[in-house]
Amino acid sequence: MGMASFALGCPTPAGWLAIALGDLDATMRDHLHCERKAVASALSLIHQYPERTELVRALSRLAHEESRHVMQVATRLRRRGVVLTPDRGDLYAQRLRQRVRKGEPARQLDLLLCAALIEARSAERLGLLAGALPEPALATFYAELAASEEGHRELFFALARPLVDEPSLRMRLDEWISTEAAIVRALPVEARIH
Amino acid sequence: MGMASFALGCPTPAGWLAIALGDLDATMRDHLHCERKAVASALSLIHQYPERTELVRALSRLAHEESRHVMQVATRLRRRGVVLTPDRGDLYAQRLRQRVRKGEPARQLDLLLCAALIEARSAERLGLLAGALPEPALATFYAELAASEEGHRELFFALARPLVDEPSLRMRLDEWISTEAAIVRALPVEARIH
Repeated sequence: MGMASFALGCPTPAGWLAIALGDLDATMRDHLHCERKAVASALSLIHQYPERTELVRALSRLAHEESRHVMQVATRLRRRGVVLTPDRGDLYAQRLRQRVRKGEPARQLDLLLCAALIEARSAERLGLLAGALPEPALATFYAELAASEEGHRELFFALARPLVDEPSLRMRLDEWISTEAAIVRALPVEARIH
Repeated sequence: MGMASFALGCPTPAGWLAIALGDLDATMRDHLHCERKAVASALSLIHQYPERTELVRALSRLAHEESRHVMQVATRLRRRGVVLTPDRGDLYAQRLRQRVRKGEPARQLDLLLCAALIEARSAERLGLLAGALPEPALATFYAELAASEEGHRELFFALARPLVDEPSLRMRLDEWISTEAAIVRALPVEARIH
């Protein structure tokens, strides 16, 4: 985390890891939906900001990576004999998205910072799983995914950076960090990634 | 096309190729959006039919492939110095989607047959481009994409097949083939994939 552009405002609640491991199938089903929504979000940003060539390039690559994760989690679920269930919705992402401001460049800045926060939280939780999963192949898989999400966090932050001056960026980032931490603390602790 | 499960109801209008080549940048910008929407559609089917393990497996792989195409088209646009523009919408896909019935399994059958038709039309047009593009690297690229979309057409058809008995499948497929052909004939001929 030494190179990271920012730190999360709070760690994941202490009880989460045991609950997530306690129903790993549920956690992995939710994880597949999270990766699916990560692809959709990246493509939606391309749709909304097509003229930003660097964003199109970076997020099409990110979508490709996240879609590999969808495939990989699907394969692992199938091997475990686990059938995917409907997405139970994502209060975490919904509450974050409610804070996205209207008007540009505020909106784009918020969407990118919000995405960076979501990636940072995912990286933290996938890393916690990686450190605790008894099955070595699965632990390695989750460690790789955590590293990938860590990279995506940096990418979203780098895409947000040129939109406003540095003090404005830092101020809004600090607000997002507080918001995200408050949302995490308010949500029930469940066997899911978010 | 000998192994194909069905044939399109009409060829692309004769004037399309010259118009598409005449403004290749516009055609490629539209193509990027088409690939982006193909990823989104595949992920949406996973979202809607999570319990169909074979569909989840196959469409997560397809989404991964289509997201590579987004990346590849983005790279080629950038090399050509072309900036992506907003998606101009897709009357073709909208008109097809209006014919999707409600209620299951009719809805799932229609969504999959409709996706198969869209892939078949894309394969046809990317193949036309491949056969006419003067730049060898770009022609090869489009030939590869056409082959990939041809595979996706077969995949969607294979996923549709088990949903109803063979006569019902053929009957509905024939209706979709006629519908798609009528839509193609009614749309203006423009520098875009659909």
